[in-house]
Amino acid sequence: MTTSIFDRDLPRGRANHASLTPLDFLDRAATTYPDRVAIVHGEHRWTYAQKYQRARRLASALVARGIGVGDTVSVLLPNTPAMLEAHYGVPMSGAVLNAINTRLDAPTIAFILDHAESKLVIVDREFTAVMAEAVAASRSKPPVIWVNDPLAEHGEPLGEAEYEELLAAGDPEFAWVGPTDEWQAIALNYTSGTTGNPKGVVFHHRGAFLNASGNAIAFGLNRETRYLWTLPMFHCNGWTFTWAVTAVCGTHVCLRKVDPTLIFPSIADNLVSHMCGAPIVLTMLIHAPETVRRRFDHTVSIATGGAAPPSAVIAGMERMGFKVTHLYGLTETYGPSTICAWPPEWDALEPDAKARKMARQGVQYPTIEGMRVVDTETGRDVPLDGQTIGELWLRGNTVMKGYLKNPKATGEALAEGWFHTGDLAVLHPDGYAEVKDRSKDIIISGGENISSLEVEDVLFRHPGVMEAAVVARSDERWGETPCAFVTVKPGASLTAEEVIAYCRENMARFKAPKTVVFGELPKTSTGKIQKFVLRERAEAL
Amino acid sequence: MTTSIFDRDLPRGRANHASLTPLDFLDRAATTYPDRVAIVHGEHRWTYAQKYQRARRLASALVARGIGVGDTVSVLLPNTPAMLEAHYGVPMSGAVLNAINTRLDAPTIAFILDHAESKLVIVDREFTAVMAEAVAASRSKPPVIWVNDPLAEHGEPLGEAEYEELLAAGDPEFAWVGPTDEWQAIALNYTSGTTGNPKGVVFHHRGAFLNASGNAIAFGLNRETRYLWTLPMFHCNGWTFTWAVTAVCGTHVCLRKVDPTLIFPSIADNLVSHMCGAPIVLTMLIHAPETVRRRFDHTVSIATGGAAPPSAVIAGMERMGFKVTHLYGLTETYGPSTICAWPPEWDALEPDAKARKMARQGVQYPTIEGMRVVDTETGRDVPLDGQTIGELWLRGNTVMKGYLKNPKATGEALAEGWFHTGDLAVLHPDGYAEVKDRSKDIIISGGENISSLEVEDVLFRHPGVMEAAVVARSDERWGETPCAFVTVKPGASLTAEEVIAYCRENMARFKAPKTVVFGELPKTSTGKIQKFVLRERAEAL
Repeated sequence: MTTSIFDRDLPRGRANHASLTPLDFLDRAATTYPDRVAIVHGEHRWTYAQKYQRARRLASALVARGIGVGDTVSVLLPNTPAMLEAHYGVPMSGAVLNAINTRLDAPTIAFILDHAESKLVIVDREFTAVMAEAVAASRSKPPVIWVNDPLAEHGEPLGEAEYEELLAAGDPEFAWVGPTDEWQAIALNYTSGTTGNPKGVVFHHRGAFLNASGNAIAFGLNRETRYLWTLPMFHCNGWTFTWAVTAVCGTHVCLRKVDPTLIFPSIADNLVSHMCGAPIVLTMLIHAPETVRRRFDHTVSIATGGAAPPSAVIAGMERMGFKVTHLYGLTETYGPSTICAWPPEWDALEPDAKARKMARQGVQYPTIEGMRVVDTETGRDVPLDGQTIGELWLRGNTVMKGYLKNPKATGEALAEGWFHTGDLAVLHPDGYAEVKDRSKDIIISGGENISSLEVEDVLFRHPGVMEAAVVARSDERWGETPCAFVTVKPGASLTAEEVIAYCRENMARFKAPKTVVFGELPKTSTGKIQKFVLRERAEAL
Repeated sequence: MTTSIFDRDLPRGRANHASLTPLDFLDRAATTYPDRVAIVHGEHRWTYAQKYQRARRLASALVARGIGVGDTVSVLLPNTPAMLEAHYGVPMSGAVLNAINTRLDAPTIAFILDHAESKLVIVDREFTAVMAEAVAASRSKPPVIWVNDPLAEHGEPLGEAEYEELLAAGDPEFAWVGPTDEWQAIALNYTSGTTGNPKGVVFHHRGAFLNASGNAIAFGLNRETRYLWTLPMFHCNGWTFTWAVTAVCGTHVCLRKVDPTLIFPSIADNLVSHMCGAPIVLTMLIHAPETVRRRFDHTVSIATGGAAPPSAVIAGMERMGFKVTHLYGLTETYGPSTICAWPPEWDALEPDAKARKMARQGVQYPTIEGMRVVDTETGRDVPLDGQTIGELWLRGNTVMKGYLKNPKATGEALAEGWFHTGDLAVLHPDGYAEVKDRSKDIIISGGENISSLEVEDVLFRHPGVMEAAVVARSDERWGETPCAFVTVKPGASLTAEEVIAYCRENMARFKAPKTVVFGELPKTSTGKIQKFVLRERAEAL
């Protein structure tokens, strides 16, 4: 093969080639807007110059401890300045950030520390007790640094030093070096996993840069963005908004816990423009007592994901001044990969019709290469008919490197050149995907497929229902029947007969639950309903 | 060096790695929004499905002619659907798109065809005369396809086939293959060059993808964007908006010529949301007769670059319903690389103060890696004092591969790991860069540096001045003195004494022009004032 004129004398060099990395976002923000407020935390403020200096101090302190490329630093932190600094300082040392879910128990954390081969742990004061237990239970027993966050309410010191001491020993002008290869790992995020041990999802610098850019484009971030951290940063690095907000030189508004008594004042006082959260966060805001709510005159864009927001939730949020956007993704795709892009003409729809539109996972981000809904038996794309169910597949630079030390699971997840989400979806005629169920959440009754999500959607529309989950229950005659678990709204009362009758009126009769159980729903540490627990309960009835 | 756990069993594959290319934007748009209007051209409409099919037809027709990776396809087209299709169809064949400035003369075009080693030429009917002459004058005499655009007003056929015949022979389902290496060339753009032969600037797929993403983030494009093509697409591929608008699945509104009688109705009828253009476009809209202007109720975002918009222009545009944004870049940086990001508090400034802010080239795009203003003698960054002048340097993935077949010029432009823009700038305390002059446009009078831009800025504020340019004129006593060339507004009258007096009142006396010449200003084919012509005239006075 001969080289063309375009291959000659046109080499890559420092001037025209750089590894893509979200770390550059902070360098740029600090250089161009040194005095802009980067972080708000209660009454505290840090500028971008300060944030950058602190991140560089952290990186140099880590390097001084012998930590570098290929090493893991684990953190157990709420949405604090230290957590944001870790998202820059840890990879600036060359190391990989492992942000652990703060709701996990000690044995699971111990498993993660060992599996990730963590060289250092950074833990917030409020979580030192569980971390002490986890380190003791681990084989590796990594050293610990504790963070004495000014807004932490309790907890004892742990480990060899306090975080500010570590930073004080660091160099604020540290000349960090970006990855020589943008495929280098930047983060390690363990999936909560409803069964078995959690899997470690590996992100690289290239994907983090691109997904952050995708967030900025899809969710409309800009320099005026003030982003409230209602979404845990340990959740896919805050869906990569930890980097996206810095990319646009916006302001991060920290929040230690998802509490309406903190959220409403923060929105009003900080003029919050954007936030994210699971649907439960939206529900919590809607059901906050009148005394807790604060009025604000501006519109707040809130993105939600993990489950489609019911119509009552959308309407309730709109009344309070929020504009809801539905994003979809998984830890394996750096968080959001698709968006239910909202054409203005849908604004005029009735609440229920609007909710049905917003239930869609939507269209792919510009930063992901491909999305398909595939009949896994034939390997063909399903038609755009809004009916035929297939598995949702994604591919592109914002799909994980793979699962750490788990080539079998990696191979299965990325088989045939696509990431298999495990979510069952339809494609609507306008190209929007809508997830109907997880593969294992389909109920097969009398040979007919029943989507548990569809039944849940109807249940959510009942004015007396606060939360609902539907699973399959074995049945001699039908094979399986839908079994509904329902949490009733405070002050409301409901009977199983009423619930079943409501479902029959609002959907095909055969899809209506045969059994209804009232009570609290079991949840994972990330707030997902544990359907496997419900399935066990249903079988034990 | 041992490999870390993050290097093991985590390979790149089709699922998690793809070459970055803006071609994916069209695939995504056509897949997710097949029926959305991609292109508006007069009364004609094409959906994204149609646009994608036509681009694939073009690619397959090119491949059938033996055109592929490393080959150049030259086009001489106004802002038409064929031009947009070329931006996708040509690189989908693997070839490099060479969009030629339609204002060039035949000898220059002939030089470009030979230098680019063009394998095929596609030319609009209105430009077949100059192209016939150019091909005849070229050594290579490439084959020609002519485009019979429905809105073309004159011109004869040229070459072996009409464009639609070429497409008819193509495959609308052509399975194009993206670049295996994202460093592969996608476009070749010749700088207009005020002296000597034009230089061929080479873009790659990676840079085109990234700069398009940067445009979407910086200029706030989204799915509702309706982009009017007032900026020539031959100008750095329309500052990469040819790809950016498709990235957000917006609508391209074509425009064959920059004419207010076409622009105003298009804005009103198509609800145009965004457009770009040189300052002369803004001036033209402001001075359009009342009978030509159309009212519109929405706000149109207009980005301008190449020169800072004067205060009268900003105010005039705002009165008509436009919001002006100042972008900065060069062909060597894929068009825009910096933006004068506009904090809301600047809205309240007086017109002159506002114009002084908007004169700034601003802060770097999130997609460029670095921006510096460097004292080229010491190699140090200038202080952020708004006063010290240095050369503006840029680096990153959106800096060109280099100049085609010109390693010497490439080496000089990219020396020391930075692209040397040749623009002299200051950095303001808030981090914003402001270009004060081209290196060769500084006037040195009595040992003092005078920025010709600064003098021009004052001249522009005079109510009788339509256009102005200032150059150095040799002077026995002072070395050089400023010489102003002024075009007077229609209906106004001015004397040299009045102009000089006005300048003395509004700036340091020594900076005021010593000579004033009235008349039309000479311009390049891209509308830039030809200062070298003015310098010659000044010396000849």
